[in-house]
Amino acid sequence: MGTASLGELAVRFGCTLQGDPDVRVAHVATLERADPQGLAFLANPRYRRFLSQTKAGAVVLDAQSASECPVAALIAKDPYAVYARIASLLHPPPPAIPGKHPSAIVDSSAVVDPSAAIGALAVIGARVRIGARSSVGPGCVLLDDVSIGADTRLVANVTLCNSVVVGDRCLLHPGVVIGADGFGLAPSEGQWLKIPQVGGVRIGNDVEVGASTTIDRGAIEDTVIGDGVKLDNQIQIGHNVRIGAHTAIAGCSGISGSTTIGSRCMLAGMVGVAGHLTICDDVVVTGRSFVNSNIRKPGYYSGGITIDETTRFRKNAARFHRLDELAREVRRLSGSAEGRDDKSQDDPDDE
Amino acid sequence: MGTASLGELAVRFGCTLQGDPDVRVAHVATLERADPQGLAFLANPRYRRFLSQTKAGAVVLDAQSASECPVAALIAKDPYAVYARIASLLHPPPPAIPGKHPSAIVDSSAVVDPSAAIGALAVIGARVRIGARSSVGPGCVLLDDVSIGADTRLVANVTLCNSVVVGDRCLLHPGVVIGADGFGLAPSEGQWLKIPQVGGVRIGNDVEVGASTTIDRGAIEDTVIGDGVKLDNQIQIGHNVRIGAHTAIAGCSGISGSTTIGSRCMLAGMVGVAGHLTICDDVVVTGRSFVNSNIRKPGYYSGGITIDETTRFRKNAARFHRLDELAREVRRLSGSAEGRDDKSQDDPDDE
Amino acid sequence: MGTASLGELAVRFGCTLQGDPDVRVAHVATLERADPQGLAFLANPRYRRFLSQTKAGAVVLDAQSASECPVAALIAKDPYAVYARIASLLHPPPPAIPGKHPSAIVDSSAVVDPSAAIGALAVIGARVRIGARSSVGPGCVLLDDVSIGADTRLVANVTLCNSVVVGDRCLLHPGVVIGADGFGLAPSEGQWLKIPQVGGVRIGNDVEVGASTTIDRGAIEDTVIGDGVKLDNQIQIGHNVRIGAHTAIAGCSGISGSTTIGSRCMLAGMVGVAGHLTICDDVVVTGRSFVNSNIRKPGYYSGGITIDETTRFRKNAARFHRLDELAREVRRLSGSAEGRDDKSQDDPDDE
Repeated sequence: MGTASLGELAVRFGCTLQGDPDVRVAHVATLERADPQGLAFLANPRYRRFLSQTKAGAVVLDAQSASECPVAALIAKDPYAVYARIASLLHPPPPAIPGKHPSAIVDSSAVVDPSAAIGALAVIGARVRIGARSSVGPGCVLLDDVSIGADTRLVANVTLCNSVVVGDRCLLHPGVVIGADGFGLAPSEGQWLKIPQVGGVRIGNDVEVGASTTIDRGAIEDTVIGDGVKLDNQIQIGHNVRIGAHTAIAGCSGISGSTTIGSRCMLAGMVGVAGHLTICDDVVVTGRSFVNSNIRKPGYYSGGITIDETTRFRKNAARFHRLDELAREVRRLSGSAEGRDDKSQDDPDDE
Repeated sequence: MGTASLGELAVRFGCTLQGDPDVRVAHVATLERADPQGLAFLANPRYRRFLSQTKAGAVVLDAQSASECPVAALIAKDPYAVYARIASLLHPPPPAIPGKHPSAIVDSSAVVDPSAAIGALAVIGARVRIGARSSVGPGCVLLDDVSIGADTRLVANVTLCNSVVVGDRCLLHPGVVIGADGFGLAPSEGQWLKIPQVGGVRIGNDVEVGASTTIDRGAIEDTVIGDGVKLDNQIQIGHNVRIGAHTAIAGCSGISGSTTIGSRCMLAGMVGVAGHLTICDDVVVTGRSFVNSNIRKPGYYSGGITIDETTRFRKNAARFHRLDELAREVRRLSGSAEGRDDKSQDDPDDE
Repeated sequence: MGTASLGELAVRFGCTLQGDPDVRVAHVATLERADPQGLAFLANPRYRRFLSQTKAGAVVLDAQSASECPVAALIAKDPYAVYARIASLLHPPPPAIPGKHPSAIVDSSAVVDPSAAIGALAVIGARVRIGARSSVGPGCVLLDDVSIGADTRLVANVTLCNSVVVGDRCLLHPGVVIGADGFGLAPSEGQWLKIPQVGGVRIGNDVEVGASTTIDRGAIEDTVIGDGVKLDNQIQIGHNVRIGAHTAIAGCSGISGSTTIGSRCMLAGMVGVAGHLTICDDVVVTGRSFVNSNIRKPGYYSGGITIDETTRFRKNAARFHRLDELAREVRRLSGSAEGRDDKSQDDPDDE
């Protein structure tokens, strides 16, 4: 953790400075609880009420809010992005301390860059390659033929199965499992035959994978995660899924096998996507949605039914289970009220 | 595992004893399969049919059921709670055997109470503190500056990231990950900038965390889990979530970032809660619900649509996707049947 | 990985060979990208368009497609099952290399078959038994009294809690946790008392358990997973669940405690099943369904509401939340249009 002067920060990140350029900030803070060494930000209007009372050393905000700021202000068009950059400067990730912990088990055929760090009780299999300045934390297991690029960090207890390829500047959190077998089964006489899963997994550059997220290896060809993809915790990615660059997926979502998701998509939490589908670029799917057909048009899609008080919800849900009947009754009433209309072409009564 | 006489148990747990106080029980058992050393209980009426045939040494039950009990009975107002206490007496958790397994890697700056146990191949980072009688099982990784109170047990393969604080008498099951980075991203020019996650996680006393549950560290301030909170398996708790004391959450649920849940709440399985919400104390949310707005009133809330036979479900679901149209048709019919009513104030047709 | 001649394969797997019996294949491949050493298959009609251009050495397919096959064909009634068998022949799982890695910690009371393999930094507790040719991968933790049959493979970082029993020919992927405590709590004075979980877990033969799937131990009696059951990733199986033989469950599903699922069932992804239920044999539940009642009849069941464009979905969802009202209005209109009918016996208006 370093400190930085506001003058330095304004120049480096292209902000307009309102206040003393020699003030120094040391860490990030919330508007509400910042001390004078704290750098706060205002991006979400919900927190504006804390601005006038803040004790922060400086606040990153947009031009409209600057006049209300009681302390120094770093004025930016996109305060959240500027905050992200300053926060990364003040709070850099811990540097990898080059070298292998004596308790790690590293196969003699592994090629580990001398600037990389291998933590306590990590296991590095045969022919594994680990790039410059990368860090494999305590308890990680890398099976044979894994390859990791430069500046990538596996925090702890990450498992990479054989032949998994991870790019540069990735961040893999504890409990991540990449390259386990996909769920490939053929039914035969009332039992299941296993389909060997001989494809791999390729993770691009600048990918973050959250705690306990699992990414299965391909059945024949590879599962592919594009550059800049961000995956939250507890996500399941099936075999042969392909995810385009800079797509972000929130926690507890699941993507079934052989589905392709485009670039710059955003899937909120607990979204489920069925298998063998295609979702185009620039699609946003809101929380708790179930995607069971291709999405060919960028835009917003939803599917989550929200809660109600239990008694009221149950009444409505009971009606849902007789909705077809209700619709037929309405159709009948329409007919008797006005004489039978010609049926429209997409009439669900025809189904 | 010890044994206990019914007389002892009746006194200790305030039950009325019906039967011989010198009978001893050695273990818990189901009504259906108990042997004479088994202590069974009757709390769920679904199992009452097994009472008359039970071979248990004794049964914990309420006064109404006592007359039907063919063996000794420990009569209690709340048989399930009394059963829980007796079961804990008969089946205490394994004691921590003080000391460090020679294969564990413990940083020289860590402060481990001499009565604590560190299991095989555990990793204990710099400045970690472990309290009296606590147990860190095999394969656990505690990164730097973690603090664990007294009488807490990490079963095996638990990961605590740097600076996580866990209280007294907690129980953390295998695969738990606490303190991984929250999902903090700022969009910038079609890519994602990482927001450093510099807050911590504070887990209170008497907290249980189920297998493979993940609790993320805060973005700036801490994620906080209150005293007596019980979390089942495979739950995801986002950054800066706050969960009040004695709240219980069942498996596969997910709580998005910055949401506050009150005390004594119960969330059933697969519940999803969106971010930045507040749920008050004493709220019960039934299975599979999606909470997407604040809950300000204690009570029962539901949101899970249940199954039906596929052909019937699909017809109803198709109607759901045209429900607005159907409602408009009904409105039109009401108008033509009776003359147009004044629209009521909360009419969804106005949306 | 071996190679095999088409003649050999046709005889061994009962196929009709169309083409040269001396052609050899070395690996599996997709129709689209196969090289002449590749064995491809056609089972899903969606991939038929790639058949005419394939460069595969041979294709496994059914009689109807054989005439369109430009290369050698292995004609089978069930091409996918035959493909599975040939793929397993060409890509056998890595053999366990007998013996214990010097870094593994094996309790002196454990009984490990001399043909079994114990990987680097694995922990094997007291009285554990490991059968012939089984393999315990790096980082696995087997607590006391675990028993594993023959030819079973724990890939890496698997945790088996005390007394868990696993059969023969099982495959357990990284992050699996079997035998953690079930979620057993008794409310008492605004707090939760823990119910000790003293049952075990019994896993049959030929069971596959996907990455990060968790199976809890029973409260009193055992949790039981039948022979040939296949579980995908990130599934949660509660205490005292019983799953019948050859049932398959896809990723992110959750089965609550004390539920019994029959044999040969298929549950798709993200299915949730409430507790204390019974599902009979031969039931198929489609994706994202919520099962909250017993299923007594084999067949197909569904419950997942799919997405729509957000604006449209929200309109329909708002109507859903007033559906009971709408149905009452329709009932009123029916009455006024035709004179009040006698209410039918299962009229939801009576609820």
